Amino acid sequence: MAISIGLGVILALLPWGVGAIAETGSFPADLDSTIPQNIQVVLNTIWVIFASTLVFFMNAGFAMLETGFCRHKSAVNILAKNLIVFALSSLAFWIAGFAFMFGDGNSFIGLHGFFLSGPDNSPSIGDAYDGIYRSLDWAAIPLKVKFFFQLVFAGTAATIVSGAVAERIKFVAFTLFSLGLVGLAYGTIGHWIWGNGWLAQLGFWDFAGSTVVHSVGGWAAFIGALLLGPRRDKYPKGQIAAIPGHNLAISTLGCLILWLGWFGFNPGSTLSADPEAIAHIMVTTNMAASASGLSATLVSWIYFGKPDLTMIINGVLAGLVAVTASCAYVNISSAMLIGIISGILVVFSVVYLEQWQIDDPVGAISVHLVCGIWGTLAVGLFSVGPEIYTWYGEAGGPLVGLLFGGGYSQLLNQLLGVLAVGFTMIGFSLLLWLALNFTVGIRVSADEELAGLDLSEHSMEAYSGFYKEQD
Amino acid sequence: MAISIGLGVILALLPWGVGAIAETGSFPADLDSTIPQNIQVVLNTIWVIFASTLVFFMNAGFAMLETGFCRHKSAVNILAKNLIVFALSSLAFWIAGFAFMFGDGNSFIGLHGFFLSGPDNSPSIGDAYDGIYRSLDWAAIPLKVKFFFQLVFAGTAATIVSGAVAERIKFVAFTLFSLGLVGLAYGTIGHWIWGNGWLAQLGFWDFAGSTVVHSVGGWAAFIGALLLGPRRDKYPKGQIAAIPGHNLAISTLGCLILWLGWFGFNPGSTLSADPEAIAHIMVTTNMAASASGLSATLVSWIYFGKPDLTMIINGVLAGLVAVTASCAYVNISSAMLIGIISGILVVFSVVYLEQWQIDDPVGAISVHLVCGIWGTLAVGLFSVGPEIYTWYGEAGGPLVGLLFGGGYSQLLNQLLGVLAVGFTMIGFSLLLWLALNFTVGIRVSADEELAGLDLSEHSMEAYSGFYKEQD
Amino acid sequence: MAISIGLGVILALLPWGVGAIAETGSFPADLDSTIPQNIQVVLNTIWVIFASTLVFFMNAGFAMLETGFCRHKSAVNILAKNLIVFALSSLAFWIAGFAFMFGDGNSFIGLHGFFLSGPDNSPSIGDAYDGIYRSLDWAAIPLKVKFFFQLVFAGTAATIVSGAVAERIKFVAFTLFSLGLVGLAYGTIGHWIWGNGWLAQLGFWDFAGSTVVHSVGGWAAFIGALLLGPRRDKYPKGQIAAIPGHNLAISTLGCLILWLGWFGFNPGSTLSADPEAIAHIMVTTNMAASASGLSATLVSWIYFGKPDLTMIINGVLAGLVAVTASCAYVNISSAMLIGIISGILVVFSVVYLEQWQIDDPVGAISVHLVCGIWGTLAVGLFSVGPEIYTWYGEAGGPLVGLLFGGGYSQLLNQLLGVLAVGFTMIGFSLLLWLALNFTVGIRVSADEELAGLDLSEHSMEAYSGFYKEQD
Repeated sequence: MAISIGLGVILALLPWGVGAIAETGSFPADLDSTIPQNIQVVLNTIWVIFASTLVFFMNAGFAMLETGFCRHKSAVNILAKNLIVFALSSLAFWIAGFAFMFGDGNSFIGLHGFFLSGPDNSPSIGDAYDGIYRSLDWAAIPLKVKFFFQLVFAGTAATIVSGAVAERIKFVAFTLFSLGLVGLAYGTIGHWIWGNGWLAQLGFWDFAGSTVVHSVGGWAAFIGALLLGPRRDKYPKGQIAAIPGHNLAISTLGCLILWLGWFGFNPGSTLSADPEAIAHIMVTTNMAASASGLSATLVSWIYFGKPDLTMIINGVLAGLVAVTASCAYVNISSAMLIGIISGILVVFSVVYLEQWQIDDPVGAISVHLVCGIWGTLAVGLFSVGPEIYTWYGEAGGPLVGLLFGGGYSQLLNQLLGVLAVGFTMIGFSLLLWLALNFTVGIRVSADEELAGLDLSEHSMEAYSGFYKEQD
Repeated sequence: MAISIGLGVILALLPWGVGAIAETGSFPADLDSTIPQNIQVVLNTIWVIFASTLVFFMNAGFAMLETGFCRHKSAVNILAKNLIVFALSSLAFWIAGFAFMFGDGNSFIGLHGFFLSGPDNSPSIGDAYDGIYRSLDWAAIPLKVKFFFQLVFAGTAATIVSGAVAERIKFVAFTLFSLGLVGLAYGTIGHWIWGNGWLAQLGFWDFAGSTVVHSVGGWAAFIGALLLGPRRDKYPKGQIAAIPGHNLAISTLGCLILWLGWFGFNPGSTLSADPEAIAHIMVTTNMAASASGLSATLVSWIYFGKPDLTMIINGVLAGLVAVTASCAYVNISSAMLIGIISGILVVFSVVYLEQWQIDDPVGAISVHLVCGIWGTLAVGLFSVGPEIYTWYGEAGGPLVGLLFGGGYSQLLNQLLGVLAVGFTMIGFSLLLWLALNFTVGIRVSADEELAGLDLSEHSMEAYSGFYKEQD
Repeated sequence: MAISIGLGVILALLPWGVGAIAETGSFPADLDSTIPQNIQVVLNTIWVIFASTLVFFMNAGFAMLETGFCRHKSAVNILAKNLIVFALSSLAFWIAGFAFMFGDGNSFIGLHGFFLSGPDNSPSIGDAYDGIYRSLDWAAIPLKVKFFFQLVFAGTAATIVSGAVAERIKFVAFTLFSLGLVGLAYGTIGHWIWGNGWLAQLGFWDFAGSTVVHSVGGWAAFIGALLLGPRRDKYPKGQIAAIPGHNLAISTLGCLILWLGWFGFNPGSTLSADPEAIAHIMVTTNMAASASGLSATLVSWIYFGKPDLTMIINGVLAGLVAVTASCAYVNISSAMLIGIISGILVVFSVVYLEQWQIDDPVGAISVHLVCGIWGTLAVGLFSVGPEIYTWYGEAGGPLVGLLFGGGYSQLLNQLLGVLAVGFTMIGFSLLLWLALNFTVGIRVSADEELAGLDLSEHSMEAYSGFYKEQD
């Protein structure tokens, strides 16, 4: 009840009408004079490089988040996975992922630009990819800036998997899966949506990757966790055992690093130093995260009787994932509502997955898959349509959302994308995980799991010199 | 004695006269041609967004600093407070704080711009707020950039309180206090100083917030610590017990994150991509932090017989807080002297507060309140006056300081601001803390405190699997 | 064997010819119109300040990396060293280091600009220093921006020493050595190479400091570790004892922070917001790090039987150090090969140094000295020559490298620089360490070492409340 009151108060406070109208840009018209392109390129480059470094830093965020949420006996393994995975992603995305995603080809896949090279020294992405500014040429930054920005995104998708399969996966299986995910699946699906492929052509919109990055990683994580089965201590005699994380200080640090990183992830996806767009997206991103953190706190407080730190953390992340698809297309009040709902979703998703015996040690599936889907659909509910924001109108974008009077069209487009990506990733993940299972194997032995992956996979421990429980 | 020598040597080395004169900008005159406003807006936006993200990251700095300085049995609680507080600040500042601070109104409070909206889609802050460029229009960045930059500052004020009240405050009391602090007090006092309110009109200057942010947070922390009383183990039988922090690795990390964040906090407060101003403020900020860290190290080495890591950490932070008010108005040598003094102040402040049985587990009162006051007064001592630096002359700023031949005028202005903010914050904090005490209560029970706030407030522990002392 | 296959596959994949040619800039010619200098100064300032803050953050990276790799009983000491060393560097570089490095003088040392001041308010570095744009005037950023950027580099050199001498050096000896290193040796050697001194005039090139920063720090670390001798527990009865780090979570965090910091270190060394140059250097830096991390992982997996997290970490760092000298002069495939080799070098260097009883607790000598030398020589092997990249041609740079058909000239230039800096740093380090040994002493007593430096040097422990092993 308290929560209904709390949410009711917040909802009542949201200045829906006013906000939707008043938040348009307010600069005087004389700002519209054109910036010379050589200057614009420098501005865009600085902006995108800055955003790229923030997104790169998310690797540290995921490493700390996931490691802290698991047991000390798996810490070295998770750290090693999260460190090497970006090196693997760099290799795979350079060799093939970027070409599949943005190279000239057909509406299903890119076929040029492998190794960041080709006949005309470019995967011709001036044609194939326009970011959210789909109607514009995105060539206003150097090719290698585009590559680096897209690479750090690809790395994010791979790192999402790490947490869900933690504490029982073989190190070698994870590394091979990551190569396949980044080099093949991520690039291909990305082509459909950001490479002007068939989903883009059908009117599916995902501004910064609720689907492209988070759902793709989330589906791979989900199938991996399903195939691996739960950790041996998770369901003793059919009961659910809590397996608390060993270091919530670094998990909280990880959450804050990820929150920081999202200020590159979402506003950086403009790929252009557009002040009004950047500013708007910073604020929608932040308010969704805040609202989601608060709603997850309230829900967990009601539901469990105490404000649960792991739920506050995952609540914040849920809001960030959820607003990623729509951050450029919705007003601040809608962003907060998207966040409030994601904060509720993530708590119940964690609870239900646990009851269904799908063991996800860090909550990655709930955060990235469930809220990635929610965020993708939210585009069809809350988009204000192309008449409100300057960047939206110029660049193209989703139709007016259902709740803003636009009917079901955009929502159905979004649903189509969710389903297409879902089926594809289920199929791909099943195939790759099973192939790995029949070759190198994906799960460590029961003895190795009992000893902990740090000893069995790395012959090391993370916290030498401390006395620790040994189960 | 060694310290007198050390300080003497440093002081003798400072190139007072030369520095004060020679540090003026040295660019050729042809740089003065005007940058077109549409380009300037992009430059300013990139700069302020960059600075904003650094300041946002200070949330992680405070979380690590404070958590490490406390006991392991309070870690979850401090982490949860420091994570949720930015979500709360976002909500409160969006609803009301920004409007109170920068909205049109009177010289006491802003009355428009709630929910970042209003009749003309702006709290009309082009008139009311000019940053330190008080004579200029600060409208050269989008409204939402201004909002986000000011929001991360507001969040900082709230997070300061967390450390001082740690290990005995109720979670719910802290969250409600934070809402009131950010939504009401911070915004109102900020209006007086940065919103062209009565203190600004009387000639009080605080460049980046030694008073607006640090003293405001510091007073709230001080009153909170006073009302809560010391932790139950702090003064056994009237003796002072040392209660060492449980993780100085993350505390040191926190200090370095905060140092990093201050490179957004101070230079970002230009709100404008002015190269000479940014460069100067980077250097004064860094040199004050360095000098303060060194002087606190030397003082603690002499006083305690060993270089105390917690004093090195708080020494660096003390210098950063102290130079915040004056970083744009003083030369490098003065910045170092401000830092040297803050490093001394913070050590003795920690010692005396402990003797007076005001229990501040992390030293927040000494760092933010004591050095915030010192830094605010230092403006009246060291300001070079409006004839030296380009940005200073154009933008307006404090009168020449006492030690630079300007008499007592500016120092008295600063003292007036310190007193006005002090009395106001003492009153506000007393009222709000006492109101909370009579409703939800502010202090956990003795049993809960003994068990640790992690168990009693969150039913969790931060370091599961490690063997720990249980007192 | 597996490794030969792995490396062979990677090598076979590298698109040598295509890459080398195709990676040239591809912007249309109309971008070449000149940006007005007042705008260029703002762009450069924002870029360099951004890069500076990333490099500053490397202090946190080193602190976490080194602390985690040592025992818990030395944690406070290492944290204290790594925090205070930047304050000391700031002082020393402001007083003298910057003047020695970039001030007018002769080809051996700068003689003006102490305290960042002088007759014409500048060390006249417009003439003396041109960054890699040696033929251009680097005066296109304010003096204090140059100072701050160079200061954070100087701090890096000092912090390298900290790890190699950890767990047995006196705190006071380390602080005094750091003052001398940054104030005297770093500035002088830097003058030879970046201050247009004799090595620069002879044609030695080091883009971002494989020699200037990493080898200089590495030599000081090497001599320090040699003179100090190994830790008392390292070689019991002539056997090699593993002394595992106490917190690999923070070490991994440190590695990722350093990786992030290098995106300022290398691309920032353009000192100019040149989009093509920045983009190229981002990518070469990242790909070298990735390749090196992967090769170190593979080598350690083969050699030790398990993928060793400490080797993954040091492998990444080895690649970053190695590509630092050449990142602007080589193509992506070469950068990867440089990284692959550094990843192999670092593993065997760690193994051999250990066998030779040179005790380097964190691997600093292997990472910074060995791979710093390798990277410096690699300029003479892989440089594409001044006809390929726009920034290279305009700014001057190394001759075509040996493997690209340029003969031995550049390689010999590089070798000369390696030897000159090596002999100088050996001499300087021996003198300073021995002088300190005869005055304050450099090594703690056996009892103090047994108790741990935290207790003996600081009377504190880092992890109060945890039960820990006490040897």
